[in-house]
Amino acid sequence: MAQKPSIPKGTRDFGPAEMAARNYMFDTIRSVFREFGYSPVETPAMENLSTLLGKYGDEGDKLLFRILNSGDAFSGIDLASYKMEDGQADSRSLSLKICEKGLRYDLTVPFARFVVQHQNELSFPFKRYQIQPVWRADRPQKGRYREFYQCDADVIGSKSLINELELVQIVDKVFSLFGVDVVIKINNRKVLAGLAEIAGAPDKVVDMTVAIDKIDKVGLDAVKQEMKEKGLDDDAIAVIEPVLTLKGSAREKISAMRPLMDGGSVSGAVSETGLAGLDELEELFGLVAAAGISQEVELDLSLARGLNYYTGAIFEVKARDFQIGSICGGGRYDNLTGIFGLPDMSGVGISFGADRIYDVLKGLGKFPEDVMSATKVLFAYMGGEETMYLLPVAKALRDAGVPCEIYPDQVKLKKQFDYADRKSIPFISITGEEERLKGLVNLKNLSTGEQKSFPAGDIDGMLAFIS
Amino acid sequence: MAQKPSIPKGTRDFGPAEMAARNYMFDTIRSVFREFGYSPVETPAMENLSTLLGKYGDEGDKLLFRILNSGDAFSGIDLASYKMEDGQADSRSLSLKICEKGLRYDLTVPFARFVVQHQNELSFPFKRYQIQPVWRADRPQKGRYREFYQCDADVIGSKSLINELELVQIVDKVFSLFGVDVVIKINNRKVLAGLAEIAGAPDKVVDMTVAIDKIDKVGLDAVKQEMKEKGLDDDAIAVIEPVLTLKGSAREKISAMRPLMDGGSVSGAVSETGLAGLDELEELFGLVAAAGISQEVELDLSLARGLNYYTGAIFEVKARDFQIGSICGGGRYDNLTGIFGLPDMSGVGISFGADRIYDVLKGLGKFPEDVMSATKVLFAYMGGEETMYLLPVAKALRDAGVPCEIYPDQVKLKKQFDYADRKSIPFISITGEEERLKGLVNLKNLSTGEQKSFPAGDIDGMLAFIS
Repeated sequence: MAQKPSIPKGTRDFGPAEMAARNYMFDTIRSVFREFGYSPVETPAMENLSTLLGKYGDEGDKLLFRILNSGDAFSGIDLASYKMEDGQADSRSLSLKICEKGLRYDLTVPFARFVVQHQNELSFPFKRYQIQPVWRADRPQKGRYREFYQCDADVIGSKSLINELELVQIVDKVFSLFGVDVVIKINNRKVLAGLAEIAGAPDKVVDMTVAIDKIDKVGLDAVKQEMKEKGLDDDAIAVIEPVLTLKGSAREKISAMRPLMDGGSVSGAVSETGLAGLDELEELFGLVAAAGISQEVELDLSLARGLNYYTGAIFEVKARDFQIGSICGGGRYDNLTGIFGLPDMSGVGISFGADRIYDVLKGLGKFPEDVMSATKVLFAYMGGEETMYLLPVAKALRDAGVPCEIYPDQVKLKKQFDYADRKSIPFISITGEEERLKGLVNLKNLSTGEQKSFPAGDIDGMLAFIS
Repeated sequence: MAQKPSIPKGTRDFGPAEMAARNYMFDTIRSVFREFGYSPVETPAMENLSTLLGKYGDEGDKLLFRILNSGDAFSGIDLASYKMEDGQADSRSLSLKICEKGLRYDLTVPFARFVVQHQNELSFPFKRYQIQPVWRADRPQKGRYREFYQCDADVIGSKSLINELELVQIVDKVFSLFGVDVVIKINNRKVLAGLAEIAGAPDKVVDMTVAIDKIDKVGLDAVKQEMKEKGLDDDAIAVIEPVLTLKGSAREKISAMRPLMDGGSVSGAVSETGLAGLDELEELFGLVAAAGISQEVELDLSLARGLNYYTGAIFEVKARDFQIGSICGGGRYDNLTGIFGLPDMSGVGISFGADRIYDVLKGLGKFPEDVMSATKVLFAYMGGEETMYLLPVAKALRDAGVPCEIYPDQVKLKKQFDYADRKSIPFISITGEEERLKGLVNLKNLSTGEQKSFPAGDIDGMLAFIS
């Protein structure tokens, strides 16, 4: 009995139409990465579990796809010793014994591993981009998949803020090429740390940022309530609140913040870290102004992002005309490679959310109309001799860069027109015996209906007609 | 203690230089696929094991990478019941219980699954290409990896030999673009079946083809010896031998074969299958002659290829000037999708062996010299104000399509020149305070040493200098 074919839940097939759209998206992003001197890197789908475990928290460890050791995975294993008191198998220990490899969960940890492993072959600062799938055993739901592409650019080995600027420029250029208006939000982790310091709660910086990250969704009062629940007292909140309600340009916000970090808040405390963060923001916004960015760039002091490894700049990008959350994000991390034995490598990176960007482009109708049309001319099948006659014509057109197809089977013309229609092929050639005997080739523009005949050798004439 | 980073054996990282070369290779092949109207498709890395098992023989089943079920894989499993009499775990049964998914082993079975699953969305004949990694738990050795890319093009839903021709044209064009001379060898499974028939051993066709496939390596006598050992008698071998020693053009070989298949061999038997195969070969070589192929195309009656699912044409490509075995192969299969419930879908396909082709291009020095040079201009870091001054210049060059970089850190010029050298950047700009105050931008050609200064607004002048 034949199997009814299916694929694992949370995974997807991409057919020609989706691939054409996705390739347009990835090619655009890739072209901008290259314009800024980022080099491509690829790492294996499988990493040693020892590389992956412990890098994404307990929750992340559970979401890793593990690969059964090849050969006889259970050879030499005494199953009885993996039975727990309640009779259940000790899944955790046994999994570690029978699985030494896992599928990559993101591109950041493999990149850190790559940099450390190949440090002697690389020239620093090292700018790389990487566009590859990652796998997570998350519960599949709308917009969340178990296999999805990440699209990352990172610079490692340079502390200069020119790198931060460059990532802003990349975001600017990518979305401008897409014709999508975005807001590029910027913050700095040091400013958040400084805020916790002058609030007298330096150990509460994570609780504070987790709370204020939600301000857009839940409002100021709920944020204050959450901070209170997390143990920030009224005095602390009195320091933090005025910062969250700052209005104005980046320059204005930085000017308002500086005295607060320098002893002018209600606590009177000074934060060197916070002042350093403001210096960085000031320099970055200065570079942004000098470089000329088309999209809106905003200093958002409530921007925190959940990731605890950021140590300096934090970025987030949102589409202005489409509700979907963050479509791109990143930041600076000071010690990504330390865990693999290479300390003091500062880096900064950004990740484009491919699936969400795809939805934005589709939702706003921003995919180019001709994104699907690869083949330009279909030579209809009119008989074996006509095919022989047309082969050199098709070859000449292809050699001139025009994708074309010869319909291979003797079927009704209706079916061949349908084929052209479904593949969005804009020109068809109905060249039968009559044309062949006269040495002509017929071409028809399927959108205007215009037809013309050309001598078989007049490739230039045909090229002009179809261009 | 920091981990010493490594990757699983048989897998590879691809750094910038290899990626540049690989991208050149894949982009070239992809461009030709597109020129012939093939559409891209991607399938998930993970397939259900039920899709994969039994499709590659017992040996193939063993080489599948299996993925541990997510969540608690051993939940509800009584380990004791998987203990065999000798005390060992029943690995085979237990693996099937705890792993429902596997990594794809090739692109052909997922493609068949894709066609059946999406048959109502596709227009036939359906021409697809697919360039994705596959995974095999083979013992790693030189040139054999556990993760490697396959690069396939197939047409499904058409029996026309125009498809076979098209694949020959694709091979011809790809290797001509690479500047690599190849021999495209063609045979037909029906001719091999016919040969076994007239030899009176139709059930021995597999043994016979396995034996004669080795003739290039071991010679005629050893092939005859192997056939004898496999149970083909002297009378059978007397029929087969003259075919293996046929010389001449495709036309001459076909002319010599036709009477043999039509009762003129020492057995006097007639094979309709063999005659049909010869008709196909004659038609295909006629199409090849009409289309105009630059590379050598040869009818090789000893070409068998191990794959038993081919039913018509068989292809194999070898480099003329580099010893490495087959670099591309394929053929026609009549019932690939039957196992998934869609019978009578004839298809024909070809697969480019990416790793071997890479070795050929490298070995023959056929990668373009500038394949690595992505960035065209490096603006050396000469100070913060100079950077601000150069930002709009870099932006204008990028907008004109010139990839460029601004070195981000204040380091010695020597180090910046080294950076340019290692990234094969051909132009450097040393624009210091003096040039800035005069409103000039300096550019230096690093291979000729030629230097020139341009007004900062003279982007056209700079473009001319670096093009």
